[in-house]
Amino acid sequence: MKIRTAIAGLGRMGCIHAENLRFRTRKADLVAACDPDPERREKGKSELGIRNIFTEFNDMIHRSDLDAVIIVTPSVFHCRQIRDAIHAGLHVFCEKPLGTDLDECQETARVIENNPEQVFMLGFMRRYDTSYRYAKQKVEERYLGKPILFRGYSVDPESAIGGILSFLPKSGGQFNDMAVHDFDLARWFLKSEPRSVYAIGGCFAHPEFADYDDGDNVAALMQFENDSMAFFLAGRTAPHGYNIETEIIGTQATLRIGAVPQMNLVELMDETGIRKECSRSFPTRFGPAFLAEIQEFIDCIHEKRKPEITVYDGLMASKMAVLATESFRNNKPIVIK
Amino acid sequence: MKIRTAIAGLGRMGCIHAENLRFRTRKADLVAACDPDPERREKGKSELGIRNIFTEFNDMIHRSDLDAVIIVTPSVFHCRQIRDAIHAGLHVFCEKPLGTDLDECQETARVIENNPEQVFMLGFMRRYDTSYRYAKQKVEERYLGKPILFRGYSVDPESAIGGILSFLPKSGGQFNDMAVHDFDLARWFLKSEPRSVYAIGGCFAHPEFADYDDGDNVAALMQFENDSMAFFLAGRTAPHGYNIETEIIGTQATLRIGAVPQMNLVELMDETGIRKECSRSFPTRFGPAFLAEIQEFIDCIHEKRKPEITVYDGLMASKMAVLATESFRNNKPIVIK
Amino acid sequence: MKIRTAIAGLGRMGCIHAENLRFRTRKADLVAACDPDPERREKGKSELGIRNIFTEFNDMIHRSDLDAVIIVTPSVFHCRQIRDAIHAGLHVFCEKPLGTDLDECQETARVIENNPEQVFMLGFMRRYDTSYRYAKQKVEERYLGKPILFRGYSVDPESAIGGILSFLPKSGGQFNDMAVHDFDLARWFLKSEPRSVYAIGGCFAHPEFADYDDGDNVAALMQFENDSMAFFLAGRTAPHGYNIETEIIGTQATLRIGAVPQMNLVELMDETGIRKECSRSFPTRFGPAFLAEIQEFIDCIHEKRKPEITVYDGLMASKMAVLATESFRNNKPIVIK
Amino acid sequence: MKIRTAIAGLGRMGCIHAENLRFRTRKADLVAACDPDPERREKGKSELGIRNIFTEFNDMIHRSDLDAVIIVTPSVFHCRQIRDAIHAGLHVFCEKPLGTDLDECQETARVIENNPEQVFMLGFMRRYDTSYRYAKQKVEERYLGKPILFRGYSVDPESAIGGILSFLPKSGGQFNDMAVHDFDLARWFLKSEPRSVYAIGGCFAHPEFADYDDGDNVAALMQFENDSMAFFLAGRTAPHGYNIETEIIGTQATLRIGAVPQMNLVELMDETGIRKECSRSFPTRFGPAFLAEIQEFIDCIHEKRKPEITVYDGLMASKMAVLATESFRNNKPIVIK
Repeated sequence: MKIRTAIAGLGRMGCIHAENLRFRTRKADLVAACDPDPERREKGKSELGIRNIFTEFNDMIHRSDLDAVIIVTPSVFHCRQIRDAIHAGLHVFCEKPLGTDLDECQETARVIENNPEQVFMLGFMRRYDTSYRYAKQKVEERYLGKPILFRGYSVDPESAIGGILSFLPKSGGQFNDMAVHDFDLARWFLKSEPRSVYAIGGCFAHPEFADYDDGDNVAALMQFENDSMAFFLAGRTAPHGYNIETEIIGTQATLRIGAVPQMNLVELMDETGIRKECSRSFPTRFGPAFLAEIQEFIDCIHEKRKPEITVYDGLMASKMAVLATESFRNNKPIVIK
Repeated sequence: MKIRTAIAGLGRMGCIHAENLRFRTRKADLVAACDPDPERREKGKSELGIRNIFTEFNDMIHRSDLDAVIIVTPSVFHCRQIRDAIHAGLHVFCEKPLGTDLDECQETARVIENNPEQVFMLGFMRRYDTSYRYAKQKVEERYLGKPILFRGYSVDPESAIGGILSFLPKSGGQFNDMAVHDFDLARWFLKSEPRSVYAIGGCFAHPEFADYDDGDNVAALMQFENDSMAFFLAGRTAPHGYNIETEIIGTQATLRIGAVPQMNLVELMDETGIRKECSRSFPTRFGPAFLAEIQEFIDCIHEKRKPEITVYDGLMASKMAVLATESFRNNKPIVIK
Repeated sequence: MKIRTAIAGLGRMGCIHAENLRFRTRKADLVAACDPDPERREKGKSELGIRNIFTEFNDMIHRSDLDAVIIVTPSVFHCRQIRDAIHAGLHVFCEKPLGTDLDECQETARVIENNPEQVFMLGFMRRYDTSYRYAKQKVEERYLGKPILFRGYSVDPESAIGGILSFLPKSGGQFNDMAVHDFDLARWFLKSEPRSVYAIGGCFAHPEFADYDDGDNVAALMQFENDSMAFFLAGRTAPHGYNIETEIIGTQATLRIGAVPQMNLVELMDETGIRKECSRSFPTRFGPAFLAEIQEFIDCIHEKRKPEITVYDGLMASKMAVLATESFRNNKPIVIK
Repeated sequence: MKIRTAIAGLGRMGCIHAENLRFRTRKADLVAACDPDPERREKGKSELGIRNIFTEFNDMIHRSDLDAVIIVTPSVFHCRQIRDAIHAGLHVFCEKPLGTDLDECQETARVIENNPEQVFMLGFMRRYDTSYRYAKQKVEERYLGKPILFRGYSVDPESAIGGILSFLPKSGGQFNDMAVHDFDLARWFLKSEPRSVYAIGGCFAHPEFADYDDGDNVAALMQFENDSMAFFLAGRTAPHGYNIETEIIGTQATLRIGAVPQMNLVELMDETGIRKECSRSFPTRFGPAFLAEIQEFIDCIHEKRKPEITVYDGLMASKMAVLATESFRNNKPIVIK
């Protein structure tokens, strides 16, 4: 018996999930989708062959025969749509972040926790990337000793800046949009909660970010309950590609993931030297992880178990993002309670 | 409309193709399989959910409603089964090598060429690996200048030696079993045909290979019509994993594929230094390529076009393997006519 | 005509300079040395063949026929000895840091600036390492675009912890002992002055550091006048070797120096994967830089020109170290005036 | 007491040795030099400060007060000059190769062996490079298990082709000029003697080499007494720099030296990807090795011991070069007796 799923939002990321659910996910069917944009709806019908296409989220969840919904809408809608879907009795997979307003995140978390039979999962796909999983396993085997420093870079390619700038008015800021993945990874790898945050940043290439009290590159330094430290860089100006790099330094060993963000196993030697070309975009880098997380979501529903990622993880990552943003704007450190 | 496919052979490689056809290939169905081994037949039924399971290849192709067959049987059966399937009107995908006897290969090539409406494809999956495709594209863009040297290593992990040794009596020898992929790559990248071959080898860890007039590591040096050179190493004793490495040196640039045969993007720093763990097996290294080649086969059938790999490519690679083996055994160079 | 030099301090670092001056430096002679330790004095005489050996610094500078003195004594003595030597009319090369007390550093700077005919140079040897020089040249050619982030790691090998712990009572703290090189590099590469600092840290392996209000690993986040950011990690617990790593991220490009702190050009492939062994100690990593900086000092004297490194560089690096230490101890950010 | 040395030949390589002997070698003096070229003689006097400069080799060795001579003349003169110097009672260091004619090499070897009190050393400087020494030590510790394959690339940068082409009439051919280092390394690492050789090659960028029965890139495949194999590539067309790369594959491990022929520890990330620039010339790559080998020669004289490299090593490397050339020209394998 296949899980009947629907997709809310047929943008770039929505289409990735839709294709995976249509063609590569076992024991699942994609039966409906919604999007306010008529062109995207048309694409969902013709290219993806989705049978039931809606304009409104609530029409979709109430007028289709569904088991689960995948929410890939703008971040400001996440919390309300999650609650509506949970109340409609659906299992819910939601793209990161959980939300942009901490109170609403908390309320949403309560709704989810009150409906423990329904599977909820957040799209921290890096946890399903083979390299990150491999690193996590090493950490669980105590390979690192005591963790000292987590370092996470998430820098979008400069080549994508056009779309980013037009998206600025709706953006939750760099810490929310970019670093939130690293905030989740830091907690996952350090196995502790942050107790302080200090953030700085600036506009180095794109002054437009300043209009939104943001920087095109921002950095945060955190310390965790277990004393371990974390340094984060989030930016939009990488000339060489999609730069997602993670390092965890421990007393016994250090792990690095993606320090050389190579696109494949090819090395080129020519008059520029010896080089590797870099991953250019998140679909290239994390394509298999997007499939793996959706498969895990489906498998959890079938097997009546909980995904590793909880709504609390989403809540904490959003909290870290909000406080980092606040520290950056006020230029002072914040103690996290 | 989906292509109805059948799998001949449910060994390790057969199961990889079967799973891909069952769960990940678009516009294809897996409707039948055959294998002489009852345990494998049972697995095909229960684990892979294949409806029609046969003992005999010919029963399968004549008593099922099929469009295409995927041949993953021992190399000695390839040629006959290809001919039988072509005569039965089926499209055929066959694992490498085309065969072990050159006369039979040639006869098979004729049968395939006489039935040009039926798609035939050989499983040189490396051509469908993203790294190799990327390198090939660079070559097509004349990035290398004039090609000087192709170097291909194909060395199985020592950890797999148990299975290899038990398979020795049925093996076609190292050049046939291992280097045949590199022979195909050399022609693909150098865009020329070999004109001479000289081969040597030895038993460095496993004297058992000598009983079959083979070495556990063998090497060949070839020169091609366009003067470019090729060096091949095929072996079974890699301590660090599955070592598939390719280099093409040109007058303008050099390309290397898999020179660091890393399993993922993780680097480990500890008292041993800084290191990457290596791919341990061909399914890990070439998993996505196996899927891509089968999808290409299916797409070719749908779109009534020919795959890039022809039976002639299979014939030439087998010829190179046979002559390299002969040169190694007689210890003299051979001019290829 | 050779410059007559004397060495103050025949510890590990002093002997490196002494050997370079004796055997590898052009146009210089090593004619005297002083050390309070009789064993070291004996070694200076017998192994290094230094003619005049003293117990006291002032005896040495007044009772030998000298042009220049190289100060390699404990950091607390630096400032006074520099002043004494300058007053004695000598050219002075002093190991980093300039000093441990900012007022004394400033006074020393005044003395040096009032005697502009005498060459003064500080031992920020990284500026004379070929890799760092190459990176600096790239920066000067505007390869990076606008600088965004400087990241500097200076982590001593865990294997050296014995000596470090016994040296703790005399240590100026991690920021002073280790990060001071990175502070200098950050100013060198970013071409700007720091305007704020925030530091944290902890004892992850060695609680002894807490007795001195220090951590075995400490981190600082700074922002510079030109908005560029800098992250520093200084520690003592690297399991893999001597980890000196620098990164400068700009809007056009990124430079990394020593991201893989390999000891040589050898790669090892075995069942642990593919790896490089790491530099184990600063003499191995920076041996040629120690020679290059001393040669530069000697050449400056001969050619009557100033070294690139000024006393002001030493003053600023020490100031950054003192303020980072203060921020770490008080757990609050400091605005630098 | 210092060893009084003289340099025969003040070309590029001669000047490297001369500078090392003048300024960086312990317990040695450079007291004389000879060169037929008046400009070079002038340079020796003014820039290097050599006191006694001669036109003729024999004048130099008989009319100066010498202990040792360093021969850096064209290869065809090596053997005669070695014999003359040995007969004059001098210790001799000679640049590779030993010679170009095997009979003369053998005669020279007899002279050297008949004068065992005099130190003789050949300039296989790679044996004194820290990376190669490190690899050798690993081999001695039996890290590799049984050796299977030695692979040696020696490819000059295309940027140097001008000088190479003008030197063609005097060249001993690629195997003699370039691969002779790899022939020596193969014997050193494999600890066995070659028993067969087969060579091929071609002109890929520079047809001028064909006029001398040579190729701009040539390759050889050898097998050794202990069955281990060796593959050699010698060429002149590397676009990325000076490509000296060595690999030794064993049953337990693989060693690679210079597989990434990086010039320093800097990585560059920009729109071309992530890259390292490569060593551009042999003085950059092997500068410290040139110093180390000369120091070893001087130390051997002082300590009355023999260098590791013997005249027999030179004889064998030259023999391999001559036979590889012969195999390439006649296009047939040669059994080595």
